[in-house]
Amino acid sequence: MAEKRRAPIVGRYTQEELALATRNSGMPLEALRYDLTPAGLHYLLIHFDIPAADAATWELRIEGLVARSRTFSLAQLQGLPASTVRVTMECAGNGRGQTSPRYPSMPWLEEGVSTAEWTGVSLSLLFKEIQVKESAREIVFHGADRGFDRGVEHSFSRSLAPAEAMRDDVLVAYAMNGQPLLPQHGAPLRLVVPDWYGMASVKWLARIEAIDHAFEGVQQMGSYHFRTVAGEKGVPCSRMRVNSLMAPPGIPDYYGRRRTVDAGWVEILGRAWSGSAPIRRVEFAADGVWQDAVLDAPTGDHAWRRWTARWNAPSGAHELRCRATDESGAVQPLDPPWDVTGFGNNAAQRVEVIAR
Amino acid sequence: MAEKRRAPIVGRYTQEELALATRNSGMPLEALRYDLTPAGLHYLLIHFDIPAADAATWELRIEGLVARSRTFSLAQLQGLPASTVRVTMECAGNGRGQTSPRYPSMPWLEEGVSTAEWTGVSLSLLFKEIQVKESAREIVFHGADRGFDRGVEHSFSRSLAPAEAMRDDVLVAYAMNGQPLLPQHGAPLRLVVPDWYGMASVKWLARIEAIDHAFEGVQQMGSYHFRTVAGEKGVPCSRMRVNSLMAPPGIPDYYGRRRTVDAGWVEILGRAWSGSAPIRRVEFAADGVWQDAVLDAPTGDHAWRRWTARWNAPSGAHELRCRATDESGAVQPLDPPWDVTGFGNNAAQRVEVIAR
Repeated sequence: MAEKRRAPIVGRYTQEELALATRNSGMPLEALRYDLTPAGLHYLLIHFDIPAADAATWELRIEGLVARSRTFSLAQLQGLPASTVRVTMECAGNGRGQTSPRYPSMPWLEEGVSTAEWTGVSLSLLFKEIQVKESAREIVFHGADRGFDRGVEHSFSRSLAPAEAMRDDVLVAYAMNGQPLLPQHGAPLRLVVPDWYGMASVKWLARIEAIDHAFEGVQQMGSYHFRTVAGEKGVPCSRMRVNSLMAPPGIPDYYGRRRTVDAGWVEILGRAWSGSAPIRRVEFAADGVWQDAVLDAPTGDHAWRRWTARWNAPSGAHELRCRATDESGAVQPLDPPWDVTGFGNNAAQRVEVIAR
Repeated sequence: MAEKRRAPIVGRYTQEELALATRNSGMPLEALRYDLTPAGLHYLLIHFDIPAADAATWELRIEGLVARSRTFSLAQLQGLPASTVRVTMECAGNGRGQTSPRYPSMPWLEEGVSTAEWTGVSLSLLFKEIQVKESAREIVFHGADRGFDRGVEHSFSRSLAPAEAMRDDVLVAYAMNGQPLLPQHGAPLRLVVPDWYGMASVKWLARIEAIDHAFEGVQQMGSYHFRTVAGEKGVPCSRMRVNSLMAPPGIPDYYGRRRTVDAGWVEILGRAWSGSAPIRRVEFAADGVWQDAVLDAPTGDHAWRRWTARWNAPSGAHELRCRATDESGAVQPLDPPWDVTGFGNNAAQRVEVIAR
């Protein structure tokens, strides 16, 4: 029902972008103070509508190239050994709203990231029982949410290579921060794929299918690719690029969100993460002068790392930035990397502050 | 730190408006299906930052023109008789983003409304102990959230006339839908003023003060007035105007949110509310032909009322609308009422649908 390819936008934001931003809440950056993002502050990207799901009758079907197809109820899954994994999840489109020209989609500025502890059953445990056949080339995860994108009606579905799906930390999750999943986070069941951008963590998970070919769904082949030219095949989005954010210090102005701090020593707090390798270093800059931030101990292999810095603010207007480097040597760029559909913008954050 | 009066905007949305929309999440309209809006789907309007609050050490001070000033801890308040009230709350600026020209502020389209059950201590119960003096003209409620608006630094504060504050259903709340308040909803304590627009329900409530004059805080005298001309005194926003919404039927397009339904009978579900009088009637229209909707029984004196309608959709493009009437005779207008700063837009919703 919509054009297949949408024309790039320059300048102010359209009502369609605004409607997506109002539906798909970001994490207010002061929530970087929490190790675990509280309920309702975790970012959301919901492509279609939140389905009306009944946990009591929900079924997860696993089928296709498997030795034993099976259907699990929520209660059956809850009866299996549980795993809990702390996961920093980021939308692949985070930062899109700061690129120009930009693709018409969710115009995240920088707040599409959060951390939660997910509890559920390791997918590899289910697969031991189901026995995926050697002929399986991909595992497809089908959500119950349905709608149109790029002119095609479909349910939200994504695939993983079997080796990726079999990682012990990939969960079929039924709880978040110790509570049953909320409707907007995929209740009663969702996939959680640590280290990957959020599109892999299919919500309202209804069916898992082992297939002998490359899955060609809209969300797999159409969207979620890095592309420098419209229409090219591109590189699939997978693991999160190295990134970091600071909680803007001081107090805000309501409309412009500009910050005011008292001149003198200011404590800066932030988080850094990468889906590709552990965080090695975080740097903080005031007015272009970079210094090393202090890294807290890691709190999990898949979770953001807290960092702090101290800044002696002189009176006047300043620009603060931060950038992280991971153990692979990847470092955040200072300017947005070019991408036609606005994926993977991990450019170093800018925060404008007035010290008084 | 910002201009005192902001220039009106026409057309596409500014980055400042987008940043507010991403912070201040709306209720996705499919959540109209829930009698009580689940955690994390309740709309939020947070003027400044969510404060870092410690429930264990939080204190609520009640002072000013009272016989006995007192300070309450959370535990002390939880030890008093509790009340629970089901409340539909709406932002006074709901619908601002659909007006033109529009005031630069949170550009709600229509999703700034939700319903929760709040539990806490009736303010009138606290006042029996504190004994507000007869000379008190207003009761001021001070939140801990602080920042600039219209060029003035202040904490978010609002006042009520004593008679309004003494209503039995006005609560100092510490729980929402049976759970401790979430940080973004005012943890550990907030005021809840049923029937009024949300600005009266001060979050992160730290101090209550009885004063002998009209409170002149920025959020009381500057903002939250109905004004037809910039700069005029205006009429304070108080009780919610009659309003209604439907959950858009069928399935959406990701970007444009346009809806597709199957031709034939379609079930329509919505909610109607008014802070001024009970809902008397809801009408539903397809392509300008109005019919009465069916009203469910009320679920509380301060909560929205569920309604349903059936529509026999012919193939093609259609416009759906709904409008409510309350017992005072107030009915929603078909077009936005003019207001300089975009308050109280209760124009009948429009939903575009294609039946196939």
